[in-house]
Amino acid sequence: MLLDLLDQHKQRVAECNVGRESIRGPEFLELRGNGLLFGYVHESFAEHLLLLDDTFKVYFVRSKDGSPLGHYIGLDQSLKTPKARTKAVAAVCSELREKGVITGWRDELYPVSTGFHNKPYFGLERAAAPHFGIIAYGVHMNGYTEDADGNKYLWVARRSATKQTWPLRLDHLVAGGQPLGLSCADNLVKECQEEAGIPPDLARRATAAGTVSYEMVTDENRAKRDVLFVYDLKLPSDFQPKNQDGEVESFELWPLARVAETIRKSNEYKPNVALVIIDFLVRHGYIHPDQKGYVELVSSLRTGCVEAASRRTT
Amino acid sequence: MLLDLLDQHKQRVAECNVGRESIRGPEFLELRGNGLLFGYVHESFAEHLLLLDDTFKVYFVRSKDGSPLGHYIGLDQSLKTPKARTKAVAAVCSELREKGVITGWRDELYPVSTGFHNKPYFGLERAAAPHFGIIAYGVHMNGYTEDADGNKYLWVARRSATKQTWPLRLDHLVAGGQPLGLSCADNLVKECQEEAGIPPDLARRATAAGTVSYEMVTDENRAKRDVLFVYDLKLPSDFQPKNQDGEVESFELWPLARVAETIRKSNEYKPNVALVIIDFLVRHGYIHPDQKGYVELVSSLRTGCVEAASRRTT
Repeated sequence: MLLDLLDQHKQRVAECNVGRESIRGPEFLELRGNGLLFGYVHESFAEHLLLLDDTFKVYFVRSKDGSPLGHYIGLDQSLKTPKARTKAVAAVCSELREKGVITGWRDELYPVSTGFHNKPYFGLERAAAPHFGIIAYGVHMNGYTEDADGNKYLWVARRSATKQTWPLRLDHLVAGGQPLGLSCADNLVKECQEEAGIPPDLARRATAAGTVSYEMVTDENRAKRDVLFVYDLKLPSDFQPKNQDGEVESFELWPLARVAETIRKSNEYKPNVALVIIDFLVRHGYIHPDQKGYVELVSSLRTGCVEAASRRTT
Repeated sequence: MLLDLLDQHKQRVAECNVGRESIRGPEFLELRGNGLLFGYVHESFAEHLLLLDDTFKVYFVRSKDGSPLGHYIGLDQSLKTPKARTKAVAAVCSELREKGVITGWRDELYPVSTGFHNKPYFGLERAAAPHFGIIAYGVHMNGYTEDADGNKYLWVARRSATKQTWPLRLDHLVAGGQPLGLSCADNLVKECQEEAGIPPDLARRATAAGTVSYEMVTDENRAKRDVLFVYDLKLPSDFQPKNQDGEVESFELWPLARVAETIRKSNEYKPNVALVIIDFLVRHGYIHPDQKGYVELVSSLRTGCVEAASRRTT
């Protein structure tokens, strides 16, 4: 029985990493600039970029004796500053939005960089992040309570029917993308207020507890590469969340065993949320080393995590 | 200031992964059997094995048309059962112990397998594990207390001056290798008793909290590949550890900030213990995402974690 348990949790992780091996294969072009690697662009999207205007170009790398060493996609080299690049890319993305290539516009800039704290090469509309295969960051918070016997209960949100992505699926108490120019701690406080009506004083007690990460190729050949900053917040037993922005249909407090069973047996949870909860189950000992598959499961939770600070020699 | 902080913690992780890139390079031979990969043997140790008798052999892999596809080291194919292999390898190891090639004999068998819960191919003397580059497992427990304001204090052990490895370095409250035939939970209870006098009822309250792993090449060209099962145990404030086996010189209760500073500024901690404590600092929010280097640091804590269940085509 234990064998089955972790196999199915591993399946949830695999669902968040579908097709990841192809990201570094021939169908994707590396997105580079200033000798650095920023992302991965599928051929089909590269074609859209290259047909449009001269903002993006394919560059060929050659050795000293002229033999070919590969190629990549990058911005026109006349774009010298992050500001100029951001503006030029925004114009390209707007046009592709009008053509229906980029959908789900968010009007929110994500940094394109070699690491979370590194200087952005440019800022990119959030909806375009997987088209360019850049690493996107987010904050995810498990809100839980504990009874006198130490039994844990997790707050479960059901996403609103009108949410653009994953309507009616189960979710964390609080989660949100990490935009440019805001610390993770402040972003979490803001999202706590908006999504669950958690006052700032209480929200600031949340404990950062690590990361979960994955890489997948979506049905539309986009490379979705996410790093989620995981937080735990132990809430008073009389706390009642109240959604403020209409993105949540309802909240319920579930015993941890029910949460674990739901993840094991169904796809009711939004897939990346299932991953963050598996991480919670690992950190709180509900999944433990005497279960077959433990080492592999724990290791798989940070599959997409390594930041690409590697300098290229081109 | 924050920049420096995580850079130095990252340095501690790097010290546990020294030379890891060479393990899959030409100086090491893969240790294989039944088409499976079990470890990595350095040329210099392979020479000892091959000179001795016919227990170990080098096998050459060829394609259908006879062209060479590489080679590996493995047991003589007449050794059909785990028991026969264990016995033959034990004889080889004893001889190499007498020759002074294998030092630090423990008289304890580690399983040689493709994964923690997989059937062992054979059992191997613990002291020989890095010579064969197999993954070794251990349990490491952080014992801590919490005051009324939620401030955490960590129990710090100083290793006895007569310990074979890392004498007088700082250590966890409890840690031990994971032998064949004992569950992690039971091993932890046993080690809790031996190393810190923690009674079983209290020890069983420890929470499994994940893994830490690393791979290094030692000064003697051995591939040390460890997966540590990490546990946290919150202790009553009046608990006083008492070492039973003479392996600990003294215990002290330190504020977490002092522990973190000691790891940052010195090599006082046994290197792999520093890694497990960095994981504790990450899980308990003392290291957090708004510090530069966070994503890379968190991801680096499981560098050596992936189990090698991959079947070879030979």
